[in-house]
Amino acid sequence: MDNATTEPHFDIGIIGAGQLARMMVRAAIPLGLRLRVLAQSVNDSAALVWPNVVVGSPDDPNTVLEFARPCGIVTFDHELVSPRSLDLLARSNVVLRPSVSTLQYAQNKRWQREEFSRRGFPVPAFAGVRVVDDVVTFVASYGWPVALKTAYGGYDGRGVWRIDNVGAAIALLESVSEASCDMLVERWIPIDREIALIVARSPSGQMATYPVVDTVQRDGICREIIAPADLPPQLSQRATLLGREIAEAIDLTGVMAVEYFVAGDELIINEIATRPHNSGHYTIEGSVTSQFEQHLRAVMDWPLGLTTLRSEQVVTVNVLGGTEAIDPREALSAALTDESVRVHLYGKSARPGRKLGHVTVTGPDLVDAQARAWRAAELLTGEPAEVRQ
Amino acid sequence: MDNATTEPHFDIGIIGAGQLARMMVRAAIPLGLRLRVLAQSVNDSAALVWPNVVVGSPDDPNTVLEFARPCGIVTFDHELVSPRSLDLLARSNVVLRPSVSTLQYAQNKRWQREEFSRRGFPVPAFAGVRVVDDVVTFVASYGWPVALKTAYGGYDGRGVWRIDNVGAAIALLESVSEASCDMLVERWIPIDREIALIVARSPSGQMATYPVVDTVQRDGICREIIAPADLPPQLSQRATLLGREIAEAIDLTGVMAVEYFVAGDELIINEIATRPHNSGHYTIEGSVTSQFEQHLRAVMDWPLGLTTLRSEQVVTVNVLGGTEAIDPREALSAALTDESVRVHLYGKSARPGRKLGHVTVTGPDLVDAQARAWRAAELLTGEPAEVRQ
Repeated sequence: MDNATTEPHFDIGIIGAGQLARMMVRAAIPLGLRLRVLAQSVNDSAALVWPNVVVGSPDDPNTVLEFARPCGIVTFDHELVSPRSLDLLARSNVVLRPSVSTLQYAQNKRWQREEFSRRGFPVPAFAGVRVVDDVVTFVASYGWPVALKTAYGGYDGRGVWRIDNVGAAIALLESVSEASCDMLVERWIPIDREIALIVARSPSGQMATYPVVDTVQRDGICREIIAPADLPPQLSQRATLLGREIAEAIDLTGVMAVEYFVAGDELIINEIATRPHNSGHYTIEGSVTSQFEQHLRAVMDWPLGLTTLRSEQVVTVNVLGGTEAIDPREALSAALTDESVRVHLYGKSARPGRKLGHVTVTGPDLVDAQARAWRAAELLTGEPAEVRQ
Repeated sequence: MDNATTEPHFDIGIIGAGQLARMMVRAAIPLGLRLRVLAQSVNDSAALVWPNVVVGSPDDPNTVLEFARPCGIVTFDHELVSPRSLDLLARSNVVLRPSVSTLQYAQNKRWQREEFSRRGFPVPAFAGVRVVDDVVTFVASYGWPVALKTAYGGYDGRGVWRIDNVGAAIALLESVSEASCDMLVERWIPIDREIALIVARSPSGQMATYPVVDTVQRDGICREIIAPADLPPQLSQRATLLGREIAEAIDLTGVMAVEYFVAGDELIINEIATRPHNSGHYTIEGSVTSQFEQHLRAVMDWPLGLTTLRSEQVVTVNVLGGTEAIDPREALSAALTDESVRVHLYGKSARPGRKLGHVTVTGPDLVDAQARAWRAAELLTGEPAEVRQ
């Protein structure tokens, strides 16, 4: 084989074509990057807006390998790629950024808790669960309620349950046993607030951190992000330093989100995602360099961009499908009537609770920015304002 | 015919697939707009980054009509579409934004001068030219030098010549006569500076103007844009008001650039372009709403976005192919070493003098922003700094 035939035709391949890939390809345009996207369907969010798309399952190792072969680097829109596919990629000459061992921390929560705990990172008290007795033993030390979680595959509140008694634990374990899931029990944290942080790291070790943000969840789904977080500076600093330590520890390449619980002055790691993340969408308008561009720069091992905020306050509100499942495009013109509103639609068909887009407002006044962002999100959802505080 | 078969499949069709279309499709992604692009080649700037592309000539009326049929609205990346194609579009049910009569002002400079002059807009003294005697008659009133221009098709300094004597006029008219061009002679303006303005207008008459900017030309090609222009406020106001009057007069839909000469305290219309324009590229990072998003919002008749600057100073420097015609991608990593630099590459193959991209830097300090933007542009061009001002 000569160089001409082995030279990659694409700079980066992205496994997955959801909204994160959609915002990545948008960030790739000014950089002149040649991307290839692996989509499950031609109607996937990113497949609608990018020409070089392969349709196939990320769980089929041969599909993934064929997809990856002409790509200089392969990265991810989501971490739900089958271990068999990842194994095959890792054993071939494909350059994975992040690597399989880094992905592991996001894919396997039990292993992540064990590793982080071993390194002294603050995680909730936890134990592995195979049978209900494992829960009972854990409760003897920590009491009810507890959080029960699947070790693999949960996101947006799926795969996480608050359990208050043995009967509920038994029922839950029975309902998930057919999937033969590895489970995890954790102390239920009395959360005061949730915060998050985006960290970027390149293969050559350059790092950049974004400001810590407040995230507001409902039913386990993030609804609102406020940058910067209204926190005591020491707590922001601790969250930022810890994020950097985690990035080093897991040998991150690309962008990572760390979601923290704050309980009193305790800072506890909730989840990590080794990719761009909903809690960083505010960076598109809010920061000099968006998390999507930063991810591409990091995986290319290019110099990272400035993470400075471009506004005193940035508010992002997610647009979730309402009970009527109205297409948010129908209300787009109405939402844009407020000229400060920046709308991002993902091209996805509406279903109740599905993330269909987000809205960002920047400005000097938080309350005003929140009011504008929520009003626009509610218009796009086709649902009246919910009571907030 | 029922509604199901006549309903458009695309919100907007764009005729032309250059860098303006490339930046338009990028702006369309968050708005969820379904676009179709007519490219001359699969390697056109926008064709590299968008899935719904038709390859064909804009000069072939049937190609253009077939392209336009499933599009709710048709707009333009460039105004160099043949009159025959435009005629056919105008006589079919296609909604053109801007309209053929609006496009006329950008396509036919002689007609534009006549119309603007009739309305009392400040244009240079001019006359139509068929034979050299027309130039001689004009010079009898206005003296040498003069500007000779083709009435159609010029851009980036092409189609414009400074002529100092009869011999040069004869030689020029002979050299262009084979193209049987309509020509125009104009008084040579002793320019102090050049400024430009982006105006947006929607079919329902909503208007938005961006700040007036300084444009720095060399060899007829724009090299640098500085926002906001360093002008006496009255001059900025006159330029802005005049831009609005022009938009009304030509019944603009979409975005328009007006380029002005400033000579003493005289403000003279140089050129107009009825589309997004190089002098508005700074709006991508510099403004709340980019000119590309604004154009899409205007042609969709959606509310226009805020045109406020997001930084005290914004500098854009064009990346032109150097004599070595080096691919700017080769120097991208080096250019990004300055973390304040925002690079936009157009995916075009390098040729000396060709616009391959641009660089934008925002910040409080103009001199610093200029230095950073020029350094990055020079790195991308592969050429040492030229002496400026």
